[in-house]
Order: sequence, then structure tokens, then C-alpha cells
Amino acid sequence: MTVIAEIFSQGEEVVSGQTVDTNATWLSQHLNDLGLTVKRHTAVGDQLDDLVALIREIAARADCCICTGGLGPTVDDLTAEAVAIASEQPLQFDEIAFKQIEAYFFRRQRPMPAINRKQAFLPLQSVRIYNPVGTAPGFALKIQRCWFVFLPGVPSEMKAMFPVVQQQLQKRFSLHSHCLVTLRSVGIGESAIQQRLQSLKLPDQVMLGFRAAIDEVQTKLLFPADFAINARQALVTQALDLIGDAVFAVDTPEQIQGDLPTVIGRGMKARGLTLSIIETASQGMMAAKCIGHDWLRFVQFSANIAITAERCGCSYFSDDLAQSAIALAAYLQQRQSIDWQLVQLYSGSLTDMDQPIVLYNALQTPEALHQTSMTVAGSAQTKQNQAALMGLDLLRRTLNHSCL
Amino acid sequence: MTVIAEIFSQGEEVVSGQTVDTNATWLSQHLNDLGLTVKRHTAVGDQLDDLVALIREIAARADCCICTGGLGPTVDDLTAEAVAIASEQPLQFDEIAFKQIEAYFFRRQRPMPAINRKQAFLPLQSVRIYNPVGTAPGFALKIQRCWFVFLPGVPSEMKAMFPVVQQQLQKRFSLHSHCLVTLRSVGIGESAIQQRLQSLKLPDQVMLGFRAAIDEVQTKLLFPADFAINARQALVTQALDLIGDAVFAVDTPEQIQGDLPTVIGRGMKARGLTLSIIETASQGMMAAKCIGHDWLRFVQFSANIAITAERCGCSYFSDDLAQSAIALAAYLQQRQSIDWQLVQLYSGSLTDMDQPIVLYNALQTPEALHQTSMTVAGSAQTKQNQAALMGLDLLRRTLNHSCL
Repeated sequence: MTVIAEIFSQGEEVVSGQTVDTNATWLSQHLNDLGLTVKRHTAVGDQLDDLVALIREIAARADCCICTGGLGPTVDDLTAEAVAIASEQPLQFDEIAFKQIEAYFFRRQRPMPAINRKQAFLPLQSVRIYNPVGTAPGFALKIQRCWFVFLPGVPSEMKAMFPVVQQQLQKRFSLHSHCLVTLRSVGIGESAIQQRLQSLKLPDQVMLGFRAAIDEVQTKLLFPADFAINARQALVTQALDLIGDAVFAVDTPEQIQGDLPTVIGRGMKARGLTLSIIETASQGMMAAKCIGHDWLRFVQFSANIAITAERCGCSYFSDDLAQSAIALAAYLQQRQSIDWQLVQLYSGSLTDMDQPIVLYNALQTPEALHQTSMTVAGSAQTKQNQAALMGLDLLRRTLNHSCL
Repeated sequence: MTVIAEIFSQGEEVVSGQTVDTNATWLSQHLNDLGLTVKRHTAVGDQLDDLVALIREIAARADCCICTGGLGPTVDDLTAEAVAIASEQPLQFDEIAFKQIEAYFFRRQRPMPAINRKQAFLPLQSVRIYNPVGTAPGFALKIQRCWFVFLPGVPSEMKAMFPVVQQQLQKRFSLHSHCLVTLRSVGIGESAIQQRLQSLKLPDQVMLGFRAAIDEVQTKLLFPADFAINARQALVTQALDLIGDAVFAVDTPEQIQGDLPTVIGRGMKARGLTLSIIETASQGMMAAKCIGHDWLRFVQFSANIAITAERCGCSYFSDDLAQSAIALAAYLQQRQSIDWQLVQLYSGSLTDMDQPIVLYNALQTPEALHQTSMTVAGSAQTKQNQAALMGLDLLRRTLNHSCL
């Protein structure tokens, strides 16, 4: 049985075009992965009448609807009020929700503004959903044929609350979820992956899709739930062979390998290694992506590459940046009591959109020196992010190879 | 008179979450700038019945609707057919549209595939819109009360055709555009700002709204286009006085001041200053946010605060982190040929969600020492980002004050 789902986003910032509605995209992907069929996205602003009318429309035509936004403490946050009218369930003060909001402020050692009390009023008969990272609790209730879930519009809060939503949906609907396998890669484009996979013979029931995110490209194979596991593994292995070692992780229903810093972190921890980094083009972004990992010991960035060398006390520095990166890594290896040294230098202009930069990566381990070089184009932000990913990817590849 | 507009996006790739609907955002911004009021965005997939039902709904409630997608040559492109059914205007072969499609292929010296002939069939009584960069012509027609404009879903094609759409709208409706003023702040929540603004008396025609983004909170004042500029400036000044110095920029139709790194960058450049940073909790993120700014000369991060001190050759380091940050900044001021030194230390656990961290910021300039301290809670990523913003905000405040 098809479970028809809709996504509903509330907020003037969405309808007026100040914000791109990435929540709707994220939620659609996750509902599809769970086996629901998303038929419609709708966004409306802060007018109570519009909200009520929309909730009534959806209540009559969908089985499930995830709504984001309008749960804040301010006067323009009207979702709970609209739900109360559309569902004919009055708003009721929820003691537990209130305590959770108080605790949020207490942890931050800030007084709770009086207006936040409003967020503890939830429609009668609704199920509260705890918000571990913000003040607005979510809630869910059935209106006519439709199970409505209301979540905050701040993406990090919405995403942190989704696991609970997912459990509720799995209990409520008999979902024939598919089996999704995701091959996660860096350093190769979507169309190049598609070309490499041309010789892969997929049965009709298996769907192939691609998703380009900021930090990776995902190749998705969607299998029917009853597809034989051996046959599935054989197809995944073939796909992996065709794409090559740009794939840093494979997520299956049995095992989530995670994003690039997670994969690297597992390798570093398993072997008890520590790392220091010299960044240039990425300007702190390599370190920033490794937040929460304690194997990263020391990072240095400087705008001028000669300053970098001088700061490290390294006398060898030349116009040959590949050689300079190697010399710097080797020098630091002798001087620092840190296991691995990663150095990235670059030539070209970060801010000139029409000019690419060339990256020179050197990774010195006690056993060997590893180096890579590549060209990156785009805005300063794009070059920065790609530089960070390329540096980290050399680390990932070295961990893979030296584990063998 | 308010002209009510809607945006309608057609395509399975949008409802299934494979594509973020940036067209809707772009069109909303441009319609708002023209003086239309966008009330709703809707996205549906490739089902003919859904498309017809949606066009009929919108035809009854909006004055204008811009639709993107579904104009391609393949079988899943059904928009023209849906419009024909909903408007009861049969599709008719358009000789001129066909010649334009032929010319598109001729210019590229490629034969025209037979399936592209389909794109020359437009609803009777509709106005053709020339596509200068692709094969699909657009078209516009009135259905019930609503002026519908149908454009291709490829963003570059949609945007290239919009000037003609704009001319049509300006002829058809008498439009008055709004005037938006945005106060951008850090270090203060949405609800606290609202409380501070309680005494602000706004005329009924002026709308107040808030938006929490990752790096800032925005307070938005929307004025009618004919609102007197002096009265507007007086209200903005009052709002600024009430919110206080958490506001780092004010964007008006006359001047965009920009985001926090942009504002800081202007101040540093105007005074020819350079900066070095010692980061801890933000782990590279302060530097990363300043990408493309050449006044940032040197950044250092280390997981262990004692290592930071030792690396700098600074012998003073104690358990009193506020004092240690000050000592480190003062020491670096003497040793480095860089104008300003920003040091941020922290206590507490980055990764423990239940534990906040306390940040100690010290900024040493040749003239004075500035220091702040604050508590930040949340996930490691949230703490990291807030730490980066709080460090940069001390820099912004110091630039402001020392400019006076």
C-alpha cells in the first residue's frame, strides 16, 4: 500500500525567497528512503488563515505530512495556533515541555525570556517530540486521515529530532522500505561516475541515482526489500570496482560508515595515531571539519607561505611548491612529537573566479612520504572547501593503504 | 492593491528530494522586488491528474502564478497537456515556436530530434515566450482570475526568459514595491531581540519579522514603498538603540553592509590592520570564515592548550584561562610583527552535549587589551560555530569602538 506524504514549510522567509527550502529536500529524501511516497511540497507564510486552510487541505488528501517552521517564541510563529483551529484541539500548557525549555536555558546559564513560555503550549491529544538542540518542542497528531508531524524550521534542530519521527512512522504505517546502499566519494564528479558505471548491468527493480552534496558525491542503489543479499553485495562490489578508490565509505542498512572525517577518525583511532596540519588555501577548514576528534593535535595557517616555513623554523623553502611541501612535512616529522604531518601549499589566486589554484599535498609518516597534486576552480569558498577535502582525502587514502 | 502570487514547480526530482528548488526562491525574490505578494510555493511530480488539480486550485485563489518545469520533449513532461485540460484550451501547433526550436539546433549544427516537435504545441489563446538559451518555449495565459506563466525548469533558461515575464507583469498589474530593512546581529537570540523591541511603536503598514540563520539573527522591517524615508530612518534608529550593539550591520535598499566577516574586513582594510589568531574550541572555523581576506596573517590551533602556549614560546600559562588568554595575546603582540592578536581559550567538553563550554577571548591591540567571556552549549558543531562567531564579534566591537 502506498503511503502518500506531503511536506509543508512555514515561514515568510521561505515564500519571500530569503531562504532556500533545503528542509523540504532533506525530508523528501528521508521519507522516500523509508518507503513513503512524497507527492507535494507546499510553503506558506505567517498568515493564520493560510496556515489553517493548508492544514485542512492536506488533512483530507495525504496519509502523512511533515511540517517545519513556525514553532518559535515570537508573534509571527503561529503553527501551534493554526493546528489548534484546524484540528479543533485547544492548546494546553505542557509541563514537561516547559521544563525542557527551562533546562535549555539553564544549561547555557541564561535566564529564560518570558515569551519562550509560549512554546510549551501544545494541541491537546498531540504527542510531544523532544528537541535536544533548541527550545521549540515538536509535536505530532492525527487530523482526519493524515498523521501530522510539526518540527522547528532550523535545519539542525529538525534533523536532530527526525530519528524519533522515523520511529513513529515505522510503527504507524506498514512500510516496505527499500534497501538503500550509498557509495560515498570525493574528488570525482557525478557525470564521471555515471560514465564509469555504464557497463554495470542492473536488474529492472534496482534504481540508480546520484546526489551531489557539498562534501561528497553519493551514488545510490535502491534495491527492493526482498532482493537477495548475495546478489545485492555482488552488484555493489561491481559498482565499487568501476568507480575506483574515490569511494571512501559504503552505507548499507546493516552498516553506516559515515562521512569523510568519521572514516578518517576511525582509522586514526584504531591505530592510535596523532596528526598535525599546515593549511594554506583551506584556511582552517581542514581542522574545522575534524571537530570533536582528539587525534588532531596541532594546526597552523598563514596567508604567506614563506611565513609558514619561517614559523616552523624550516630553512628549506623554494618556488617549487611540491618540493617545499615535502621538505616542510619531513622537517616537522623530525621536530614534532606528533605521528603524521600533513602539509598543503597552493599556487594561484583564491579570490579570482577565472583562475584555478593548484594544490600540493604532502603527508609524512614515519614509514613513507605520500604526495598528491590537483587543480581546483570556482569561488574562494569552493576552492577552500575542495582544498580541505583533498587534504583530508590524502589522509584517508594513506590510512587505507597502510592498513593493508 | 495587493497582487497575490504563487510559485509552482513541476518535477519528480523536486518532490523526491533529488533537487533543491532554487527556482522557487529566485522567483519569489524577484516577484517581491516587483511588488507582488508571494503567498505560496507548491511542488508536485509528473502525474497529469495532480498537475490539473493544482492549476485549477491556483486559478481560483491567486492573481498570478509562475510555473517552472515540465516543458521538455520527453514523455514525463506534461505541463502543456495539463494546462490544456485545466484551461479548456486545446493544444495547437505554433509555427513560430517550431522555427525557433529548429533554429536552436541549426546554430549548434545538430539535427533536431523528432521528439522536440512536441514542444511547439502551445495552448490556444496563450502568449508565446521566446527561450534564447534552450529549446522549450514558455507561454502565458489567464485561467479564471489568475495570470499563469509557464517557464522551463532549467534555472539558466528560466532566468534568461524572466525579463519578458517582468514586462508582462508590469503591464498587467499596477505594482508598488516594498522597502526592506534588515538588522543583522550576533550573540543575542530571536526572543531576546523581540523583548527588547516591545516598546517600539510600529505603524500598522510596517511589518516586523525575524529570521535565525546559522551565523546571525536577522530582524526585518518591511515598509510600504511610499513610506517617508525620514520616518523610516527614525524607526530604524529606534530599533537599533533598543537592540544595542549586538547589531553588526544594517542592510537597506540603498546600502547592503553584509555579513560579519565582510563588516570586519571593511574595518580592517580601512585602517590597514593585520591580525593573528589562536583558536581552540572553534578549531580553524574563525580563520575559515575569513576566507578571501588578506589581513588575516597567521592562525594556530592546538587540541591541548598547554601546547598552544609552548608553541608560542610563552612561559606564562596557568589554570586561570582568562588570564592565560590575556598573557598569550600580550606575549604575541611583542613577538610578532602583526598588528592585532586574538586569542580564544575554553574550558569544558566540546563533545559532551550536556555540558556547556566557557570561552575566554582576549584581543590585544597596540593601544589596549579587550576581553570577553561567554558560555556556549550544544553539539560540538554548534559550540565550534558559536566560538568562531564570538571571537570574530570581539574583533568587530573593538573595530567599532576604536573607530570612534
